[in-house]
This record gives sequence, C-alpha cells and structure tokens, in this order.
Amino acid sequence: MSVYDRLKQLNITLPSMTTPVAAFVPFVRSGKMLFVSGHIAKRDGKPWAGKLGAQLSTADGKQAALNIAIDLIGTLQAACENLDNISRIVKLMILVNSAPEFTEQHLVANGASELFIDVFGEAGSHARTAFGVAQTPFGACVEIDLVAEMK
Amino acid sequence: MSVYDRLKQLNITLPSMTTPVAAFVPFVRSGKMLFVSGHIAKRDGKPWAGKLGAQLSTADGKQAALNIAIDLIGTLQAACENLDNISRIVKLMILVNSAPEFTEQHLVANGASELFIDVFGEAGSHARTAFGVAQTPFGACVEIDLVAEMK
Amino acid sequence: MSVYDRLKQLNITLPSMTTPVAAFVPFVRSGKMLFVSGHIAKRDGKPWAGKLGAQLSTADGKQAALNIAIDLIGTLQAACENLDNISRIVKLMILVNSAPEFTEQHLVANGASELFIDVFGEAGSHARTAFGVAQTPFGACVEIDLVAEMK
Repeated sequence: MSVYDRLKQLNITLPSMTTPVAAFVPFVRSGKMLFVSGHIAKRDGKPWAGKLGAQLSTADGKQAALNIAIDLIGTLQAACENLDNISRIVKLMILVNSAPEFTEQHLVANGASELFIDVFGEAGSHARTAFGVAQTPFGACVEIDLVAEMK
Repeated sequence: MSVYDRLKQLNITLPSMTTPVAAFVPFVRSGKMLFVSGHIAKRDGKPWAGKLGAQLSTADGKQAALNIAIDLIGTLQAACENLDNISRIVKLMILVNSAPEFTEQHLVANGASELFIDVFGEAGSHARTAFGVAQTPFGACVEIDLVAEMK
Repeated sequence: MSVYDRLKQLNITLPSMTTPVAAFVPFVRSGKMLFVSGHIAKRDGKPWAGKLGAQLSTADGKQAALNIAIDLIGTLQAACENLDNISRIVKLMILVNSAPEFTEQHLVANGASELFIDVFGEAGSHARTAFGVAQTPFGACVEIDLVAEMK
C-alpha cells in the first residue's frame, strides 16, 4: 500500500508547505538526508498556544503533535515530490511547551510518532527525543523537527 | 585496546537495550550514521527524577549523565553488534532538567562526555550541545541522545 | 563573490576557534557533514548572560545570535580551512534562554539566520529549529549549534 493510500484511508488531506516568514527554509536536502525545520502546532491555521500542565491537557498536546505531523508530511511531500520516495523517517525532536511539573512529554510525542507509523508503515518507525521547553515561537504548545532519508 | 577491554578495565557491564514503551525505536541507521533516541537518567532501573539546582546537585547530575552514557553504549552495541565497529561518536545532545537559575549544564554533561572518551578513546571525542530544559519524560534529571558513525 | 569578500564587505573579522574547556571538541566531521558543538553567546569575550523576556530584550537576543553566528563561522573555517569549501549550511538549532512568557525566539534566531545568508548567499539558506530553554551553560542568553555540508 502506498503512502497516499494510507493517507486516504486515514482521511488526511496534506496541507501545502508553509513558507517561513523568516530568514530560513522549510527543509534542506544533503545527500539522501532531508533536514526539516521545526514546525509549530496550529489549529484552524493559527499557532495553537499554551503550556502543557497549565492551560492544556496531555490529550490536547497529543492532538497538537498529530496536527504538526500532518504539516511535516506536507513539507516532506514538497521536498521529495512523491512521499513513496521517503525510505525512512529517521529522527524526530519533539519539544513540548511545559509547565515546570509536566512530565508526560512522551505521551504528547506519541501523537506524532503514531501518525508516522500509520502513514509510512515500517519506514515510519523512527528514533526520537522528546522533552519540555520553556517556551516556543508564538507560544505554540508543541514544536517538532525531523530528519528523513530519501531513496 | 578494544572498546571491550576498556569497558572491562572501567568495570562497566553494559545493559541490554531497553525497548521503548512507545511508538518509536531506540535507534535508526541511515547509511553509516546511527541516530539514537533520547535516553533518560535511571537509578536502580527506574527514572532518576529531579531538577538540577533544586533537589539535585551538579555531582548528582554528572553521575546521572554517566549512567545514561552506559545505557547509550548498550544501545550502540545492539545497533552495531560489535562496538569496535563504531568509528566515531559524532554528536551528543545533553538535556539537563534545570531550575531557572542552574547554569552548570556543561559540568553535568561532562559525566557522559568523559565516559565516551574513556571507552572509545579518540573515536569517543565528540561535538555536543548541553542546555537546560523545563522538564523531561518521567521527570528524569538528565536526558541524552546521540549521533554516531559506523565503519 | 567569495565568502571572504562578503565577510570583508560586512566588516566582520573571524575569531579563532575557541577550544572547549571540557571533554568535547568544537566540531566533528563525518563524511561530508560537519557537526558543530553548541556555541554560547559572548560579549567582550565573556558569556553574555541573561534571560530574554526578563533582563534582555528581543533586540539584545538578536545581537547575541549574530555574535554567535560569527563565532560559528570561525569554527567552520577551522574545520574546513577555506569557507568556500562549505557547500551548505544545513540546519541550525537556536536555543533562547527564555522567561516563561517570552515567545519571540524566532526573531532572536533571525540574528544568526540573516548573517548566514549574508555571508554564504544561497548556500547559507538553512533549515532551523528555534525554541526557549530553561537555562544554558554560564547563563548565556542564546546558544546555537549547526550542521553544515562540505563540498
């Protein structure tokens, strides 16, 4: 089953890639490796602000991570034209905007991790590092970057 | 002297790799590069929780970083079968669960950095980035990921 | 125009690489990739301490990020002997020492991002992840690491 079949099954429509309003680009390719910029959580097209353990619950954070994963897949598509050209999702870094006592960053991160496996199958199985940050651009509740490998 | 001779000299027994209880894997290989997931500090087999500059001292944090380095080497062994196949420890990212005024993340990080050099010799000499995070999964006091190169 | 012409035009003198006072190295090369250690913000040769959103303004942070970018380019030069051998600045990670409500990490990060583009032209256009951290070594207001590709 192709990545596009799985996306259809999951009823996911990929967004077009967002061009950063800043002096950087959404991704850089080096050899077979794609380095993708940090993507912040959005809801209804705007930054989804808030801290986990304060305004937002773990379930909110997991949904935010899932939303970001969809945006990241949109960027991967722009980077490699056809998602079936992705041989592996290599590494995710998941930053969770955390109140000082919130320790469920790994559960928040699963919102993204699970989608990558649902969409890419074995090729979606990745290494990752999840942790709590003091803040993020626009106060977004979650921010994720990744490294992927192309065929 | 092989990596295993050094481990014996240092009286270090490698743990078997811990399989994450989540939707990700402990490492991904891409070409010659190994990307290893964030490993959290443990003591007596459980997460070693606490913030540096609050409940824990710099010496505690350095010990925690050393403990993680041993676990990371266990994961590297699972990844490459024989640690002598590691040509270089390339990059460490060391996350220190920090109270707002704690600024000795570099001293904490040395607990891991020094072990990699003790065990791998010149091949263990690495680039690194150490900083203070707001929290980590399970409240662990330190979390470390790495990139290594295989022969 | 070579990188050195641009540096001259921008009136930038590169520092010699700072050797870390710790068990790690400023950079590691793996194949064509250069992994550069986290560099902290300095002013007058000393760590530039402070939190964004508390003691320091966004403009301060942007200047700090620019200062670090100059130091990073000094390290890149030590790594590759001639900066014209850098084919791409691949990825920056920009850590902003942030008070809990500061959400302009992306504006701080632009201080570094814009310099890389000014100095390296298209090859300086990079992916990046910027976020707020709880603290950094020596209390520095900004810390940046990078991955670059050599010809």
